[in-house]
Amino acid sequence: MPHIAIPGNLPGIRGLMAFRPESAKPLNELVDVLLRQESSLTSGERELIATFVSAGNDCKYCQTIHGAIAAHDLGGDGALVEQVKRDPSAAPISEKLKALLAIAAKVRESGRSVTDGDVARARELGATDREIHDTVLIAAAFCMFNRYVDGLATIAPDDPEFYRARAEVICRDGYSQVNREFQL
Amino acid sequence: MPHIAIPGNLPGIRGLMAFRPESAKPLNELVDVLLRQESSLTSGERELIATFVSAGNDCKYCQTIHGAIAAHDLGGDGALVEQVKRDPSAAPISEKLKALLAIAAKVRESGRSVTDGDVARARELGATDREIHDTVLIAAAFCMFNRYVDGLATIAPDDPEFYRARAEVICRDGYSQVNREFQL
Repeated sequence: MPHIAIPGNLPGIRGLMAFRPESAKPLNELVDVLLRQESSLTSGERELIATFVSAGNDCKYCQTIHGAIAAHDLGGDGALVEQVKRDPSAAPISEKLKALLAIAAKVRESGRSVTDGDVARARELGATDREIHDTVLIAAAFCMFNRYVDGLATIAPDDPEFYRARAEVICRDGYSQVNREFQL
Repeated sequence: MPHIAIPGNLPGIRGLMAFRPESAKPLNELVDVLLRQESSLTSGERELIATFVSAGNDCKYCQTIHGAIAAHDLGGDGALVEQVKRDPSAAPISEKLKALLAIAAKVRESGRSVTDGDVARARELGATDREIHDTVLIAAAFCMFNRYVDGLATIAPDDPEFYRARAEVICRDGYSQVNREFQL
C-alpha cells in the first residue's frame, strides 16, 4: 500500500504526478529532453540505459515501463531488453553502448565510482562529450525516479498489457504530452 | 579534471548547466519547486534535507552549496547545519524534522528501505502526506544531483566565499531565476 493517499489509486509515478502536479511538470520535461528529444543516441538506446539502471535498483515499475518503451522503440524486441538487463556485455548492441552502460552502472553505485578509464574507453569507441553527459544524467535521473516510486511504496501492476499500452502512448506523444494530464 | 569539456570552466552543476541548457531548465525548476516555493516546511528545513543527503553521498559541491543556503535561511547558523550533517538526532531541530531526515536517509540507500514504521513515526509527529512526499522526492532528487555532479568529475571550489556568495543570490532570487543564465 502506498505511504500517502494517491488520487484515483493510479499506479507508479503516475499517481505521484497526480498528487503533486508542480513537481510532475519539470520531471516530465527532464525525461522528455533526456530520452525522447534530439540526440545522437537513439531513443531505444537511451531507454535501454534507463531500463538497465532501474533493473539494477530493483524498481519493478520503472524497469517494466521503460523496458516496454525500449522494446517498442527497438521494433518490438523484448528479448534484447531482457538480455541487456541481465548482461549487456553479451547483448547484440554496439560496443559504444556497452561502454556507456558500464558508465551508467558506476553512476548507479555512486558518481564517485566513474573513473577516467571508464570515460576514455567510451570515447575510444566513439562516444562524444554530449553522449557521456547524457548517459551520466540519465543514470542519475533514474536513481531519483526509482527512489521516488519505491520510497513512497507505489503500486506496480502485474499485467504486461498496462505497460505495453502506456509505452505505445509515450512513444507516439512523448513524456511532456503525457504530462498535460496533470498540468496546473 | 572534469570528464567532459565545461564552458568557461564553471564549477559543479553550474558548468553542467552551461554545457546542456535543455536539461538545466527542468532541473532548476524541479529544485525551485521542492526547496524554495510554497510549502509547510520552511526553505531552511528543506535545504537541510538536501544538505544531509548530499553529505551522506559524500558530494562536496552539493553539501557545501546547499549547506550555505540552509545556513543563510536559518539566519546564518552554520553550526546547526554541521550538526545536522553529523548527527541530526542530537541537533536542536523539531522531532518531526528528525523523523523526515530519517526517511531521507533510507531513501538515500534505496527507495525500498523506507518502511511503514518510518512513515508512521513521521505522521505521529505531525508530518502531512505532502511533507512526506516532498521529503522523499528531495532525497531522491539529491541522489540524482550528487551523481550528476560527481559522475562527471566537476570541480568543487575550496573557497567558502564562493558558496556564501552564491547562497545569497539563490536565497534572494530562487533557482529558476539563476537558471536564466543558461536559458535557451
